[in-house]
Amino acid sequence: MNFQDPSSLSEDELESSAVFAPRFGSGGLITAIAVDHADGQVLMVAHMNQEALRMTLETGTVHYWSRSRQSLWKKGETSGETQRLIEMRTDCDQDAIVMKVEQLGHGAACHTGRKSCFYRRVDLENGTPRLIMDSEPPLFDPEKVYS
Amino acid sequence: MNFQDPSSLSEDELESSAVFAPRFGSGGLITAIAVDHADGQVLMVAHMNQEALRMTLETGTVHYWSRSRQSLWKKGETSGETQRLIEMRTDCDQDAIVMKVEQLGHGAACHTGRKSCFYRRVDLENGTPRLIMDSEPPLFDPEKVYS
Repeated sequence: MNFQDPSSLSEDELESSAVFAPRFGSGGLITAIAVDHADGQVLMVAHMNQEALRMTLETGTVHYWSRSRQSLWKKGETSGETQRLIEMRTDCDQDAIVMKVEQLGHGAACHTGRKSCFYRRVDLENGTPRLIMDSEPPLFDPEKVYS
Repeated sequence: MNFQDPSSLSEDELESSAVFAPRFGSGGLITAIAVDHADGQVLMVAHMNQEALRMTLETGTVHYWSRSRQSLWKKGETSGETQRLIEMRTDCDQDAIVMKVEQLGHGAACHTGRKSCFYRRVDLENGTPRLIMDSEPPLFDPEKVYS
């Protein structure tokens, strides 16, 4: 599976045509967002290179590029928290990917054991931003899973 | 409003404490995702620098950093399609922001006049990815709004 080179397309073609020409940016990466297919909650934000995007489409199991490890990352390979691709979308200028996924395993996308990585909201206390943690406990114990 | 320097925190503090220490990456930018506060749909993905994040929190109106124009971007300043911040969240390692917003104006986050920038899904036809456009028409005519 090869992707079209976006630089070969006009702005109108990029935005309005049926040609999938993902715009990999600095370091050859594109931002990829996983949302829960059932309730739409944003689970995590990560990055894909060409290979991760291709593997995701070809296998139906979500792959990312790990910037910290500098390697292809089959999400859930260690933890068992794999993601099944239900639907993939791209945006107007094709520099981002949104995926509706079924979160398998314990249903925890986050390495902390939580369903979503976005488990804290920003609250202003007298003009100073602070983080308030959601009350739901983790779905697994990361110390056991990653030991 | 000043943000804590994330390099002053341990990994555990970054992930588990109440300290908001957004990790601005290459070019001083952090990925920011706007979702519809009512139905959770992902509307758009853009970037913020420190000033855009501060302005968003201080004014309650979403600001981004425009990479193409290299300037602070009050979303909707030209089109009227402003975004009111309802809730801001950050993720485990604090390198991404998710905002629940009320999309004002015509309710179109995308410069093409559509509610969401993610108006095309990736479909595989005999193993080749193609984009299928949603059937909903745009909510405004971009040629009139941006003329």
